[in-house]
Amino acid sequence: MRILGIDPGLQTTGFGIIERDGQQLRYVASGTICTTRTEGVALGNLPARLKILYEGISEVVARYEPQVAAVEIVFVNVNPQSTLLLGQARGAALTALVTKDLPVAEYTALQMKKAITGHGRAAKSQIQEMVKRMLSLPGLPGTDAADALGLAITHAHAGSILSKLAAESTLQRRQHAMLKGGRVY
Amino acid sequence: MRILGIDPGLQTTGFGIIERDGQQLRYVASGTICTTRTEGVALGNLPARLKILYEGISEVVARYEPQVAAVEIVFVNVNPQSTLLLGQARGAALTALVTKDLPVAEYTALQMKKAITGHGRAAKSQIQEMVKRMLSLPGLPGTDAADALGLAITHAHAGSILSKLAAESTLQRRQHAMLKGGRVY
Repeated sequence: MRILGIDPGLQTTGFGIIERDGQQLRYVASGTICTTRTEGVALGNLPARLKILYEGISEVVARYEPQVAAVEIVFVNVNPQSTLLLGQARGAALTALVTKDLPVAEYTALQMKKAITGHGRAAKSQIQEMVKRMLSLPGLPGTDAADALGLAITHAHAGSILSKLAAESTLQRRQHAMLKGGRVY
Repeated sequence: MRILGIDPGLQTTGFGIIERDGQQLRYVASGTICTTRTEGVALGNLPARLKILYEGISEVVARYEPQVAAVEIVFVNVNPQSTLLLGQARGAALTALVTKDLPVAEYTALQMKKAITGHGRAAKSQIQEMVKRMLSLPGLPGTDAADALGLAITHAHAGSILSKLAAESTLQRRQHAMLKGGRVY
């Protein structure tokens, strides 16, 4: 399964694609979409910047054809105006995914940090280091790309835990059914 | 010129389309896109709700073919979580417009209320009443649709004021150039 991780932001949105093959994780691609460096687009032109973001993610989806996306759940900021801008960026990012009919899983930064480093207060550099090791990268990924790859890895792990749980519960249902002498479907 | 007004909201997004022909304004259509009534879509499923919003606006754009959109500038709410949700809804709405290459003008609720009723503290019902009169509607539009139509009317007025200003400044430039004995381009 190919998983696309997205760390949304208005200035910079990180993306990372990994391939999960059983227990194996393989790096496919990663990078950032930046809305502050396009010539002719003023920083105050929010609609134009959301378009860059939408089109950037659409291009990543078209090129790498992921089967599922994992997007960070953003939180309210100290500055309410920043919260509003981040919200709009995340809205544009989610829209780029759902209009391509990609299923979207959502994880908090805390969940991602726990999945990658084992604790929720990990520094950015620890995420970069662990992502590099887990995917056998030749160098450290950038912080936004590392977070996005971290989200994709979190989903890969959550997926395998969920399928384990599902398998166990099927086993329990079978045992339970056998104990009761019932039929097993 | 055909103008689409959008009053964005996560639960309900109002839209209104008017046609401006010189000083004349003509009603074309209005309504709401509601993300809370689609079967199989849970209220907690934000990506799916943003998809409904994006597709609803896309359908309106495809059907009525506006040349420009006027979208309300939203503000931070008392509840930061609501601010974040509203931001994401507005991001999806803007994305639906810019991906169809529609130019987007943005107005605050205050600007719209002033343009429609003459004062910024107008009640919802006053907006509805004035929009009904200005567009010779047979009945009162709903509050969300009225706000959206109000935004479209605001843009129609702003457009004609801007072109008047542009014409005046051209005139002034011509006069200025003539006084200076320069060339008029």
